Amino acid sequence: MSLIPRLEEELTRPPFNAWLGLRALSAEDGQVQIALPFRPELVGGTDPEFVHGGILASLADIAGHAVAAVSLGQPAPTIALSVDYLRAAPAVELTATAMLRRLGRSVVRVDVEIHAGERLVALARGSFNNPGGSA
Amino acid sequence: MSLIPRLEEELTRPPFNAWLGLRALSAEDGQVQIALPFRPELVGGTDPEFVHGGILASLADIAGHAVAAVSLGQPAPTIALSVDYLRAAPAVELTATAMLRRLGRSVVRVDVEIHAGERLVALARGSFNNPGGSA
Amino acid sequence: MSLIPRLEEELTRPPFNAWLGLRALSAEDGQVQIALPFRPELVGGTDPEFVHGGILASLADIAGHAVAAVSLGQPAPTIALSVDYLRAAPAVELTATAMLRRLGRSVVRVDVEIHAGERLVALARGSFNNPGGSA
Amino acid sequence: MSLIPRLEEELTRPPFNAWLGLRALSAEDGQVQIALPFRPELVGGTDPEFVHGGILASLADIAGHAVAAVSLGQPAPTIALSVDYLRAAPAVELTATAMLRRLGRSVVRVDVEIHAGERLVALARGSFNNPGGSA
Repeated sequence: MSLIPRLEEELTRPPFNAWLGLRALSAEDGQVQIALPFRPELVGGTDPEFVHGGILASLADIAGHAVAAVSLGQPAPTIALSVDYLRAAPAVELTATAMLRRLGRSVVRVDVEIHAGERLVALARGSFNNPGGSA
Repeated sequence: MSLIPRLEEELTRPPFNAWLGLRALSAEDGQVQIALPFRPELVGGTDPEFVHGGILASLADIAGHAVAAVSLGQPAPTIALSVDYLRAAPAVELTATAMLRRLGRSVVRVDVEIHAGERLVALARGSFNNPGGSA
Repeated sequence: MSLIPRLEEELTRPPFNAWLGLRALSAEDGQVQIALPFRPELVGGTDPEFVHGGILASLADIAGHAVAAVSLGQPAPTIALSVDYLRAAPAVELTATAMLRRLGRSVVRVDVEIHAGERLVALARGSFNNPGGSA
Repeated sequence: MSLIPRLEEELTRPPFNAWLGLRALSAEDGQVQIALPFRPELVGGTDPEFVHGGILASLADIAGHAVAAVSLGQPAPTIALSVDYLRAAPAVELTATAMLRRLGRSVVRVDVEIHAGERLVALARGSFNNPGGSA
């Protein structure tokens, strides 16, 4: 069964996710890909324009949570998130690819890569709580 | 001379910061405090309502950058940001306190604490680039 | 009742801790302090000599785990550890101060500061698993 | 020209690296692989025996630094290191694979994976200073 409907629910139900206008690109076991269209409120600075670092962190959190939640079949609250900013993200649509690295009994680990076209602009890693998992 | 006007510029000039509606609470050498008023688009989930983790990361990035930029007198691009989520952040105004931990020649380190009233909801740590600093 | 004996057990029972020759300085509810004497095998580089970054990470992990374990009364496996290196650590005895930031039902958060004399050389933050805590 | 001799120098010159008894497995542009033989002083706990988390952090720091230094042709001091512990590391030889993710003008980013045989036991990410790079 397709995981796309579950991913789309992730991307549209929370009000902040809805405001961002995220789009599901793909969802399979252990990996999801989502797109964040550009809108002027996302800008963090000019000359030249770039997308705000907080928006990249938000995109990483959402994509990371999505792959955890889609895999677990339930929400997985974020324990911790770290983002490495590699380059300024240009004011264009961004894509985030979230990969499950370990679905542990208590903690789910996820890697996220954010691209602007072909360019890698940020790396992120998140820990999410597996609510049903602990003894 | 008061650092508040410089902090206020940080909080209003970037379009995403302006959209968030941030308010300067205090600015002194090595520490700034800012407030993020609640608005419905910030919600990450319901039952009960909480503020989205990406918004907490954004607030940490902005407060961390602000203390670095106010101290350096120029922008300091974020190198890396990590956020530890301690509790769900209730749907109320949040405050962020950013403390300079080390103003190094190439890297500026900042700690950020986010509170909802008296409750500590998140800890963050950021590295920012000191553009004028390296040899 | 003094927490020092429990801390000393933490610092001497694991073979790597014993090899490091750690010493308990203080232990109270929510905070422990330990000392790492210098020995030549800890050197990471010369001209001038400094203590290896991996040793600083080890010291942070041990101090963070110690405050979690002393508070919980049982081992708390490390989930994640991040270390920010602020300055080269000189080839002298180092002290680590670990502070409990949140003893959550599933995750314990700890901040660690490492000093060489009066100089802060590294900041660390760790997440530890609360084995008895989850529902 | 083979990068193996340069990697071997990285693994044997610093006294702590020498104490660990590290072995170069492979070195190519942008990726190095090293092995850490087991020795009893590396143990962090028993029942069953596992390798200390500080040793895994040390191995990640060394492998990350090695790929940065081999690529730059000079030392690259660690700015920050984060380690996610996925499973207890059994008391056997471990291998670390370090991959260059971005060689920036001021910061070099590296991902490290640590395996015990086929099992992934830890993920790490490091930032290293590019000493010759900044303007």
